[in-house]
Amino acid sequence: MSRWAIGIDFGGTAIKAGVVSEERGILIERRVLTDTASGTAGIVAQLSGIIADLYRKASKIMEPGDFAGAGVGAPGAVDVDNGSLSYPPNLPGWTVFPLRDELQKCLMQNEALSISVVLDNDANVAAFGEAIYGAGREFSDFLMVTLGTGVGGGIVLNRKLYRGPHGTAGEVGFMIIDFEGTGIHGGIRGTLESFIGKKGIVAHARQMIDGSSTGSSVGKLCDNDYTRLSPRHLEYAAHEGDEVCLAVWDRVGSILGVGLANVTALMDIRKFVIGGGISAAGNLIFVPALDQLRRSTLPTMHEGLELVPALLGNKAGMYGASALCFG
Amino acid sequence: MSRWAIGIDFGGTAIKAGVVSEERGILIERRVLTDTASGTAGIVAQLSGIIADLYRKASKIMEPGDFAGAGVGAPGAVDVDNGSLSYPPNLPGWTVFPLRDELQKCLMQNEALSISVVLDNDANVAAFGEAIYGAGREFSDFLMVTLGTGVGGGIVLNRKLYRGPHGTAGEVGFMIIDFEGTGIHGGIRGTLESFIGKKGIVAHARQMIDGSSTGSSVGKLCDNDYTRLSPRHLEYAAHEGDEVCLAVWDRVGSILGVGLANVTALMDIRKFVIGGGISAAGNLIFVPALDQLRRSTLPTMHEGLELVPALLGNKAGMYGASALCFG
Repeated sequence: MSRWAIGIDFGGTAIKAGVVSEERGILIERRVLTDTASGTAGIVAQLSGIIADLYRKASKIMEPGDFAGAGVGAPGAVDVDNGSLSYPPNLPGWTVFPLRDELQKCLMQNEALSISVVLDNDANVAAFGEAIYGAGREFSDFLMVTLGTGVGGGIVLNRKLYRGPHGTAGEVGFMIIDFEGTGIHGGIRGTLESFIGKKGIVAHARQMIDGSSTGSSVGKLCDNDYTRLSPRHLEYAAHEGDEVCLAVWDRVGSILGVGLANVTALMDIRKFVIGGGISAAGNLIFVPALDQLRRSTLPTMHEGLELVPALLGNKAGMYGASALCFG
Repeated sequence: MSRWAIGIDFGGTAIKAGVVSEERGILIERRVLTDTASGTAGIVAQLSGIIADLYRKASKIMEPGDFAGAGVGAPGAVDVDNGSLSYPPNLPGWTVFPLRDELQKCLMQNEALSISVVLDNDANVAAFGEAIYGAGREFSDFLMVTLGTGVGGGIVLNRKLYRGPHGTAGEVGFMIIDFEGTGIHGGIRGTLESFIGKKGIVAHARQMIDGSSTGSSVGKLCDNDYTRLSPRHLEYAAHEGDEVCLAVWDRVGSILGVGLANVTALMDIRKFVIGGGISAAGNLIFVPALDQLRRSTLPTMHEGLELVPALLGNKAGMYGASALCFG
């Protein structure tokens, strides 16, 4: 028996979907742009179409009796028990919607398929993917941090997802590390994301470039149009040895370390899996982050502190969503 | 059957010990000063003597067959599995010591008693006491915060203590809320305790009194010797309507709210039980704390946010330690 499932990473921009074999990993993959304009009904139809298509293709190569269902990781707060998705930040107009049940209904009505769907938050699903197939395999307890446009998190305790009493746990980007800070994110002052989300990094870099007496080589990478400055430019210039950009990443890593220290103090979690597009900066972030994490925690908590890069890249969601079906 | 146990709150200053009936609560109580000068062996002998004495007294009124053991809450990091206590902050020279086993051995050798001992961290034990007998009874998930000389915490998830992978969870006082702040505590900059531990509160109050153009009435409470200023003075003056002291407590509550917001963001915990000597300031702290907690969390997390005062006062440790024995 080789169980298989459909894993879906449903984002505000794109839907990434895959047929995943429990033994052999991803067998078939799809990526389509999210039809955000068509509202909840349109998105349900779109997801249902993708699932049905993948199911039919996979049924030719896999045993239908070994099919374990479809898992969906979605942006926003998910009530895992009742299968609803609330206020996904990048899907305007969406409030609280019973996505799981509507998706099952649509699969039945439009596609005549009886497929069991499980729904969870995207950050949780990515963490679970890393836990089962990726960098978290060796850790029974860890926090996965996703550094991208936002700063997200998913918590794994004792090899299971920790969702919290209301399913909203892991919002590490909303932890406050400077309550009198100037940056505001989601209406909250001084959050981790206000400092090291994409916007915060770029804004700080521009300040440092403006304030630098020696100047930075990063300007030529964005044609001296600093409105186009991106983390990728900062990463490239730092690897080229640009002092200002090196200092920017040093600060990003250090501030990440402060955030992680709070997780260690509160939850006694000492293993961190770092993913997301910004984490491509690698040791530019990892080295100062681990250093700051150690300086910001009690010596009695230093044993076992570890930061590792995520291994599954943008496939963590597909893997994790399918793994939800394998239970 | 009415089970009973001995519950001990072992602190750096005093040992509070009680005979606790599962049904009827505390039956006998003791409080003695901790013999800190005599080292680990002396303390083991002291604890053993107290347990033996209470056991013998209680055996006359309770059924020895219903005795469930002795529970000890201790300051410092406790490894619950191997029963060791590490680096208790107020017991100089104490490193890592197998307190549980040594205590059982001493009870056998000195007192000829075979008593099963369980050991846990004092903040955890107090939280568990509130969970079983106090303000946490109605909550399945909550954080207990102890506001005193230090700021401690104990986490209850699903009605059980959450100790974390290494037993050091709940160190809410070491969460960093102002990473560029000036206050340092345990070598770490900008922790919650650096702001609202006893020292931080008094230091800030003195700054505010010095900087006040109208002055404060609190001076007369400490004979204008501000080195003697205590939270109790600040509380009294605030209740009398002193503006400066009211502002001090407003800030203490607000900063507590920031710390709690981090707990909500990360763990999705929305219930907080607040105890410890400083919490006697009551609504001077609670009102601004809840207000700030709401302003510092996402609207999707506001449902169910609640702060309540601890109910067991300085008996939470005795209750919780005995409750560990009832399992």
